[in-house]
Amino acid sequence: MNKIYLDHAATTPVAEEVFEAMKPYLKEHYGNPSSVYSTGREAAQAVSEARGKVARSIGADEREIYFTSGGTEADNTVLKGIALALQEKGKHIITSRIEHPAVLESCRQLEKYLGFEITYLDVDKQGFVDPDDVKKAIRDDTILVSIMMANNEIGTIEPIKEISRIVKERGIYMHTDAVQAAGQIPIDVEELGVDMLSISSHKIYGPKGVGALYARKGVRFAPLLTGGAQERNRRAGTENVAGIVGFGEAMRIACENLEEKADYLRRLRDKLIDGIEENIDEVILNGPRDERRLPNNVHFCFRYIEGESILLNLDMLGIAASSGSACSSGSLDPSHVLLAIGHPHEIAHGSLRLSLGKDNTEEEINYVIEVLPGIIKKTRSMSPLYEG
Amino acid sequence: MNKIYLDHAATTPVAEEVFEAMKPYLKEHYGNPSSVYSTGREAAQAVSEARGKVARSIGADEREIYFTSGGTEADNTVLKGIALALQEKGKHIITSRIEHPAVLESCRQLEKYLGFEITYLDVDKQGFVDPDDVKKAIRDDTILVSIMMANNEIGTIEPIKEISRIVKERGIYMHTDAVQAAGQIPIDVEELGVDMLSISSHKIYGPKGVGALYARKGVRFAPLLTGGAQERNRRAGTENVAGIVGFGEAMRIACENLEEKADYLRRLRDKLIDGIEENIDEVILNGPRDERRLPNNVHFCFRYIEGESILLNLDMLGIAASSGSACSSGSLDPSHVLLAIGHPHEIAHGSLRLSLGKDNTEEEINYVIEVLPGIIKKTRSMSPLYEG
Repeated sequence: MNKIYLDHAATTPVAEEVFEAMKPYLKEHYGNPSSVYSTGREAAQAVSEARGKVARSIGADEREIYFTSGGTEADNTVLKGIALALQEKGKHIITSRIEHPAVLESCRQLEKYLGFEITYLDVDKQGFVDPDDVKKAIRDDTILVSIMMANNEIGTIEPIKEISRIVKERGIYMHTDAVQAAGQIPIDVEELGVDMLSISSHKIYGPKGVGALYARKGVRFAPLLTGGAQERNRRAGTENVAGIVGFGEAMRIACENLEEKADYLRRLRDKLIDGIEENIDEVILNGPRDERRLPNNVHFCFRYIEGESILLNLDMLGIAASSGSACSSGSLDPSHVLLAIGHPHEIAHGSLRLSLGKDNTEEEINYVIEVLPGIIKKTRSMSPLYEG
Repeated sequence: MNKIYLDHAATTPVAEEVFEAMKPYLKEHYGNPSSVYSTGREAAQAVSEARGKVARSIGADEREIYFTSGGTEADNTVLKGIALALQEKGKHIITSRIEHPAVLESCRQLEKYLGFEITYLDVDKQGFVDPDDVKKAIRDDTILVSIMMANNEIGTIEPIKEISRIVKERGIYMHTDAVQAAGQIPIDVEELGVDMLSISSHKIYGPKGVGALYARKGVRFAPLLTGGAQERNRRAGTENVAGIVGFGEAMRIACENLEEKADYLRRLRDKLIDGIEENIDEVILNGPRDERRLPNNVHFCFRYIEGESILLNLDMLGIAASSGSACSSGSLDPSHVLLAIGHPHEIAHGSLRLSLGKDNTEEEINYVIEVLPGIIKKTRSMSPLYEG
């Protein structure tokens, strides 16, 4: 049985070129980039090249890129770093109800420990934040707006450019978590108009344990990790050289022919959505069905059943998928994103996310369309909620 | 010309066995440990095995190990996490003047942003913290004492067991940064009596970008990285699976025949110290010269010259060394450790750290002893401070 991997939004395999780029820095080039001798300088040079690759991929200057241990650390740095640095100016932050837990839980910490007030904006049924709502929520003590570029569960691409314009007019910092958007849709920090942006390596065929924070020149934030002078004093700790090198290479590759690769994914995505809608009844597609949806995201709710049972049945057939986000799996609570778009608990529980990747084939999609109706039927037949 | 690497306290090469253990998790086993399907479960299993290896290496239970992005993150988590969680109880922390910047800079952030008071204990001429000074510094509002297990510059092994006993008697949390001690001297958290302990992978022949925090069962701390439910809700972010697997293997290997390996290093270390003292005048050995010195640490001040010039001359001969710590290199300030043990600026500037590793040979040490006197002589001859 061949394995079919349809959980690229959770994590991706490391691309062969990425692994090959990393290998020398796990082996012979093991120097500490802070050291003055040649082995150290080689490592520093490799980190610098990777920084250039990441910067160029998002239209930034390389002095605006700070390597982190991943998207979560980048998000935490923004929320907590801005909060600490600007708390004298104000203690109000605006975000949305459907952000990644890295943002939401950081907000909760600021509420709990530092006396911050957070406005959690509602979204519409497709998961969109209304720029007008952002405008209305801004107060004199607002110091930061953080809205994700694309949602990790339902694939909704937010109107970041419009939101940024409103936020920047008021002289407030604008952050976007672009972890799911990177490698899927073009990112240009100038065009988006954001001050800060988070990216992760392992969602774009790079290694786990590395990511980056873009922070526009002049943006003030307190470091989350203090200590040595690495990353120009804004992120302490010996650089994960091999990881950073792999991440840089992954970003470079991700942006090569991005539109062509995205079109391929969109074709597979639409085929899968159509196949599911045509062959299974009582299903609800979550997120929009137009250019404002991530090219690789398919997300449905199947009435009367639990997402976990679908997953286990798919796994038995060698198909890897997710009920929502990997970050909250294991939890019995329904997805905060599905509740925010208006689903009651019982529908939110029956969710399935199929997130596509560059190596998925049409044949694999056909196979999923072939087997999924049977799985849903079988699962429903065992459900006390289902009347047939 | 063969390279001689004498900067193992800055970073170590990844051991071949460690690289081989990591490889599958950079390639075929790429699952997200939070996922329910088989690829995800494999990754979760690998993380769990690594956790067991780290736990067993320090006499801890595996539920007391939290993987981080390195020693710096572990230290930051302790300082900031305890501060946030216990600030209602008190806002006083005790540490020493010779801690790693990851501890000292975290303390400065707590002073600057959260109104904490920090007592920075003095050390004696060999770098020892006096347990009696800890006792005297404890106040009713003291919530944490953080003293390093061994100093990263001069190799002094602190009396942690004695300090812990005093601190625990008063019901206060005790933390030790064991980044330099790990793999050099035995660590047993029960015997030491500490509540929290930081370790780093890349100092013990594991990969960069990963480390661990030991936190005794029941210890309260706010997570530094909030978000997903990884690490039992105490360290969010997708696990760096390959890095964690490598770290676990590195810890396991480091503790095999530790005493035998340490004896080998002590022999080389003493040979190097003797060779330098016998062949070069006006040198000062920093740190103690007994069993309370790290087995792999040699650290001297050479009067009348700058450490950087020695390093560049050594580098030209293929010898990699450091003037103090990699974390503060590039800085023009003299080492805070050397100032704390009583050296004036001009002497502190002339420092050289040679830190040994398992692959160093007696032949290499002989070569260093042979060439170093000439380098010092040449450098002094160009120094305006030296009168010959």
